[in-house]
Amino acid sequence: MPGYPNVARAIAAMPSSVYSSVTARLKAYQGEIYPLHIGDTWMEPAVGCRMEDLTVEDHPGLHRYTPPTGLPELRAAIAHRTEAETSLATGSSEVLISAGATAALSTVVGALVDPGDEVLIMAPYWPLIGGMVRAFRGEPVEVPFFAGSQLPNSPESAVEAFRRHTTKRTVAIYLNTPHNPSGRVLPSAWSQAILQWATEAGLWVLSDEVYAPFVYAGEHSSLRPMAAERTVTIGSFSKAYGMTGNRCGYLVGPAGLLTQCNKIGTNTYYCAPRASQIAALAALNSPRANTWVTEARDKYHRLGRMAAARVGLPAPEGSTFLFLDVADRLDERGLLGFLEDCADRGLLVAPGPSFGPYPTHIRVCFTCAEPALIEKGFEVLAELLG
Amino acid sequence: MPGYPNVARAIAAMPSSVYSSVTARLKAYQGEIYPLHIGDTWMEPAVGCRMEDLTVEDHPGLHRYTPPTGLPELRAAIAHRTEAETSLATGSSEVLISAGATAALSTVVGALVDPGDEVLIMAPYWPLIGGMVRAFRGEPVEVPFFAGSQLPNSPESAVEAFRRHTTKRTVAIYLNTPHNPSGRVLPSAWSQAILQWATEAGLWVLSDEVYAPFVYAGEHSSLRPMAAERTVTIGSFSKAYGMTGNRCGYLVGPAGLLTQCNKIGTNTYYCAPRASQIAALAALNSPRANTWVTEARDKYHRLGRMAAARVGLPAPEGSTFLFLDVADRLDERGLLGFLEDCADRGLLVAPGPSFGPYPTHIRVCFTCAEPALIEKGFEVLAELLG
Repeated sequence: MPGYPNVARAIAAMPSSVYSSVTARLKAYQGEIYPLHIGDTWMEPAVGCRMEDLTVEDHPGLHRYTPPTGLPELRAAIAHRTEAETSLATGSSEVLISAGATAALSTVVGALVDPGDEVLIMAPYWPLIGGMVRAFRGEPVEVPFFAGSQLPNSPESAVEAFRRHTTKRTVAIYLNTPHNPSGRVLPSAWSQAILQWATEAGLWVLSDEVYAPFVYAGEHSSLRPMAAERTVTIGSFSKAYGMTGNRCGYLVGPAGLLTQCNKIGTNTYYCAPRASQIAALAALNSPRANTWVTEARDKYHRLGRMAAARVGLPAPEGSTFLFLDVADRLDERGLLGFLEDCADRGLLVAPGPSFGPYPTHIRVCFTCAEPALIEKGFEVLAELLG
Repeated sequence: MPGYPNVARAIAAMPSSVYSSVTARLKAYQGEIYPLHIGDTWMEPAVGCRMEDLTVEDHPGLHRYTPPTGLPELRAAIAHRTEAETSLATGSSEVLISAGATAALSTVVGALVDPGDEVLIMAPYWPLIGGMVRAFRGEPVEVPFFAGSQLPNSPESAVEAFRRHTTKRTVAIYLNTPHNPSGRVLPSAWSQAILQWATEAGLWVLSDEVYAPFVYAGEHSSLRPMAAERTVTIGSFSKAYGMTGNRCGYLVGPAGLLTQCNKIGTNTYYCAPRASQIAALAALNSPRANTWVTEARDKYHRLGRMAAARVGLPAPEGSTFLFLDVADRLDERGLLGFLEDCADRGLLVAPGPSFGPYPTHIRVCFTCAEPALIEKGFEVLAELLG
């Protein structure tokens, strides 16, 4: 029955936060808090790229709308950098600015998915990709890839992992490298094979590369040059330059597709914040911000190695996360009990089920707070793991 | 056929910008440009509420995520002010912060509309409300109200205007006062009657009140107290404090509904920019910003009277727009020809069809540029109208 007091069926069925009982436990706790559940950085952005650096005198109209497609000079700068990094000719019409990388990806999903259409998502996955497919009334289809059983171990089996979940309603595949939450990097030979298959299968390719600056082993290969006519890259200033709260991200892809994505963006949030777009442009052009990225990568690399050693995992290849199976440490209370035990000691971790079919996993971020706090947080986690 | 190179049917069917030929004409023009098509303000925000006022020293973590629901202190401040203005008890759980009022409204539409569900929209209307209903695969249903034929002239006929378009798929009505684009204010007796009927009809009520601070004749009556269990108010800092580019708006409504809206917001853009939320809080608490609003209202009022007199309309009662029928001035080229003639003189106006079934109307904004420029723009428009 449509209308008050009901809401849309697909939305009512979506889970709200799973943290309520954990939050209650945390309130009773008095000591230091280790927020390893959040994907963020403790580092303030480079000097020159902060809000305090953006004055009305230098930037008249700083607080006014921009075009929904973004500031032309920012689109041009991203096109220029993308071309330099990928050796693929890229013009401004192949760049669309959005209110964060989350919004960027949601405009693609909104543009591509008719109700009931399916998107293949490599699992475990960043939780919002599942939610946004549902928000636009599509069906996210989980493809176990970097955790679980029957995992691919070759380009051929990587293709087979996707192929086996393909139906007549499949419109796109979602890939993410460097990978949140596993810390893995997709080998170039695997990407090549997957994109060749996606081309034969007539699918769109959504390539989430927001952690591209943070690779510690091997090399990041951008996927767009492998099938440029059907691939859209999702990029972020949030992760690259420590500006998660600025809400400015972007897409690079076929101009015709971006025209459709822009309809969704315009009608759901209009434009990205102007000050954040100017800050992003400042970061792209700033030697100081480049130094910032190099320093951040070194610090993240060290923290990632420390964190992985603490919990008995191989060092992460990229991103800012580890994903670990804590099945051996669960009692009859299950994962929620473990999360509560963590909260009793001030430790917050993200529950596996948010990332796909992972009832006994947790995700932890190793860059979300000052290094000293991170080290203590992983010490607590190691103790809880026994 | 789903998949590459096709996109979702509903999105492919949405029009892109209608301005291409007009843009081409404008490029040939060398003189001063009068951008009356944009709904914005020329005034910079009050001192103390600008990006340059927000330092990392005062606000550590200024560039990091906030909770998707918004900063708790901002939610509390909005609840407090709403309660003071409406005399209706309002808690923080009845406030949701969003990445602009556009995003606020799109989270409600996304939460309420199953594919094919209908939303009744008073016409003429702010173009994005139609687009966002389509973006979430619903059907916008136009209800001629402030322009067109058979217009309501009493509370009863206002109800009848909506009732006549109601079907079994109707889930909500969208009201907007002070009104964009007509400059009208909905009389309180009409709102009362419409909300009483909406209650009997079992509908949700979306009340867009982003222009509430800008009423020049009569009085603004917030709709939520008339049917609080089913009404959600959309509010904006963009319009109130000259921060359109900050992308921070909010909803006030039933906590249960906002929980559903937050699922859409979290999964499509995650959170509003932190710096913009802090700037909004600064504006709410700043005597200087209050003075700014009073001064802006006086200036807008004067400009609205001037603009209306120039084009032979009654003075606007509120908002920052006029909507006028230029049928008498069209030749065989139709409205596009008139828009091109405007562009040849540097004048940009918004075409009526973007606002509903209005093939011969245009919308003009009287606050989008410095007053001297606005005056010249309306002089050019008056000359073109003959």
